[in-house]
Amino acid sequence: MEQQAKNYDIKVPKGTRDHEPADMFIREETFATITKCFKRHGAVPIDTPVFELKDVLTDKYGEDSKLIFELADQGEGEKLALRYDLTVPFARYVATHGLKNMKRYHIGKVYRRDEPYMTRGRYREFYQCDYDIAGTYDPMLPDADCLKLVCETLTELKVGEFSVRLSHRKILDGIFEVCEVPENLYRTISSAVDKLDKKTFAEVKEEMIQKGVTASVADKIGTYVKLAGSPLEVLAKLKEDSIMSNKSAAMGVNDLQLLFSYLGDMKCLRFISFDLSLARGLDYYTGVIFEAIHLSKDAEGIGSILGGGRYDDLVGKFSSQKVPSVGFSVGVERILAEKKKRLLVQQVSPTRVFVAAVHVPVGERLKVCCELWDADIATEFTYENDPRIAKQYEKANNLNIPWVITIGEDELAKNIISIKNMVTGQQEVVKRKELGFAMKSLLRRENKN
Amino acid sequence: MEQQAKNYDIKVPKGTRDHEPADMFIREETFATITKCFKRHGAVPIDTPVFELKDVLTDKYGEDSKLIFELADQGEGEKLALRYDLTVPFARYVATHGLKNMKRYHIGKVYRRDEPYMTRGRYREFYQCDYDIAGTYDPMLPDADCLKLVCETLTELKVGEFSVRLSHRKILDGIFEVCEVPENLYRTISSAVDKLDKKTFAEVKEEMIQKGVTASVADKIGTYVKLAGSPLEVLAKLKEDSIMSNKSAAMGVNDLQLLFSYLGDMKCLRFISFDLSLARGLDYYTGVIFEAIHLSKDAEGIGSILGGGRYDDLVGKFSSQKVPSVGFSVGVERILAEKKKRLLVQQVSPTRVFVAAVHVPVGERLKVCCELWDADIATEFTYENDPRIAKQYEKANNLNIPWVITIGEDELAKNIISIKNMVTGQQEVVKRKELGFAMKSLLRRENKN
Repeated sequence: MEQQAKNYDIKVPKGTRDHEPADMFIREETFATITKCFKRHGAVPIDTPVFELKDVLTDKYGEDSKLIFELADQGEGEKLALRYDLTVPFARYVATHGLKNMKRYHIGKVYRRDEPYMTRGRYREFYQCDYDIAGTYDPMLPDADCLKLVCETLTELKVGEFSVRLSHRKILDGIFEVCEVPENLYRTISSAVDKLDKKTFAEVKEEMIQKGVTASVADKIGTYVKLAGSPLEVLAKLKEDSIMSNKSAAMGVNDLQLLFSYLGDMKCLRFISFDLSLARGLDYYTGVIFEAIHLSKDAEGIGSILGGGRYDDLVGKFSSQKVPSVGFSVGVERILAEKKKRLLVQQVSPTRVFVAAVHVPVGERLKVCCELWDADIATEFTYENDPRIAKQYEKANNLNIPWVITIGEDELAKNIISIKNMVTGQQEVVKRKELGFAMKSLLRRENKN
Repeated sequence: MEQQAKNYDIKVPKGTRDHEPADMFIREETFATITKCFKRHGAVPIDTPVFELKDVLTDKYGEDSKLIFELADQGEGEKLALRYDLTVPFARYVATHGLKNMKRYHIGKVYRRDEPYMTRGRYREFYQCDYDIAGTYDPMLPDADCLKLVCETLTELKVGEFSVRLSHRKILDGIFEVCEVPENLYRTISSAVDKLDKKTFAEVKEEMIQKGVTASVADKIGTYVKLAGSPLEVLAKLKEDSIMSNKSAAMGVNDLQLLFSYLGDMKCLRFISFDLSLARGLDYYTGVIFEAIHLSKDAEGIGSILGGGRYDDLVGKFSSQKVPSVGFSVGVERILAEKKKRLLVQQVSPTRVFVAAVHVPVGERLKVCCELWDADIATEFTYENDPRIAKQYEKANNLNIPWVITIGEDELAKNIISIKNMVTGQQEVVKRKELGFAMKSLLRRENKN
């Protein structure tokens, strides 16, 4: 094979990154915690292809649809696009398999052709961890299950203090109806309102006017969407308001009254803030919507670390069968970005034993390694024929491997093995034929301490 | 949100599939076994983006390059393509991060626009599980480590009887040189030779002639590439052959002599077949090459279940620094396809406890679930206000949940909980405030049995 000159930048595509081993360990630990929480509520895992037929994704994401990554047409007839989230593929899955109900979790990569903002955890390729319940059930019970699980998951992930902002699409739609917003503008005005956590009301009002409502309509919307706070208090205010004569708003308020009573039963109402400025960008939500935010000052500008809601019509877009659904997605990249700031990068070698040798044929080292591997003990050695002993110890030390076995002519002649723990100084000499067993006991005892 | 009529097939893209929960459990178990083996040899995990700059993939895969999935140019300047394997991204990773050595494993999806053959595990999106050692070391030591690990991994995956076909690119190149094949035809004649496991020599000879060598050259190649069998015997034959006067072939033979002695030390020579018809399709190999095949009759036509080899020049294509490397990739889809044929699909609910109720407010069920979730016990209930008790037991039974708690007015009044194991019939009544603790002990005792 010929050598080629390097003639282009050896980098990853814009907005993506490699995960180094130290990253991977934090990531795997975080996924394991999330999986444990999701399974505790009875969810089972699925996976779907990383790309879908483009039509599956079209018209599901509102203003964000332009951010979908498309595959090149290589002359085969299928138009394909990388998945943008795990919710639409889940709805497609439920439709494809003709399911009436499913409680599943899914951890996988999704793709958005967004402007990257790496330090805040915004990438073009990133993981989502989703939990969803599809099926026709009594009001607010799956929703309550989700919100309890949200609180459990964020608590166990040790993200620090958090709050779950919560609202209801039907209340928002009711507000728009009462304020006489044209129905075709509901979703675009909705996405303007959603910016109230980052922009002033004046800025959002300006955006609403540009999107086609009058200043007085925008102001009237403002009187409602500024409402936020303790769930029961905000609910009480709404119940005394004329908005209750609007059918859609009243339905939303009734839903939330029931939901809050369930959340009270489960002692997680204290995490909830009922915030009428929450709108959520995605088109497909139809009921309860929520997102979780960090409460610490450090986290300002981080945005939400989890989002979700009810989407009763999405499966119906793929099937003649309607399957109401609710769920949420953990914004794990933002949580990981925060974790990485707090943690020191640790040595991550899984290896427990290093086999060193002084002037004996390399085959002897291989035999000893082999005996350890066959006893299921993580073992390494240097891939060199006759390395200096100091270099071998240095390698063991660099890799943070605690136990070192040194083989010399003496050990071979006597059929013994010398084992030393480089951290504690503990030394053992064992019979060669008992190596695997002896090493396993040493490691077991170490784990107990 | 308006309902849309279903106006296209709700299916996954050609050559891809959804993974259902039962699939996922077999898959996760298999990945866990592979990960355990890889870590035992000291490898650490990495991940890379699912797409790379297209130039990174170009000219690395020989005749298969046409199967690369490209992303659409959406006006941003970067030409991107989905990764075709995990080896080229690894070499790019080593170059990007300026590493001199690394032993890593990587489990991830790769993409090939190949003709799908689902029943034999050939898909357009599939997982590979790769282990590689990059770094400048003494001859054949990393190679021996890889081959020992290959044998461990396939044994622990319980794939049944297997054989590792092994050869050396330098020997193959020596044969071509001795047979006077023009150098620019080496790789294409090589890929013709590689088909000898599926085609007759006559067919392969025909292909070689079409690719530009004479019939007598093809026949002379034939005398060599028909050699296969016990490593030491084939090696002995080659050492007596005039091919030894060819420098490239002699280097390959010397490598293998050393490798076989190491594999002998590690007692895995018995798994190896030295097979000169093995060529491997990919362009980047430069030394030892190998692939593992099933030996059972059922597995005929399955093809290889693992492949790998040495690629000393690949990192150098991305960097001015040469980092010799060797590794292998487990063809996990084929192994999983075989496993699925053998296993019954099992009920996969992780849930241990079902909370049922007879005519008490749903909030009471929520409270009990909550106490169990907070005690880290996987628990479910029906999302219905007042379901019939028979329907609740049926749901627990369908989900294969062993323990059922039934709450009625009596239990609430007395502050007790009745627990029943639906499999063994065991019944317990515990104090309400001790529920989490009591349930945990019951589950622990169950696990011990």
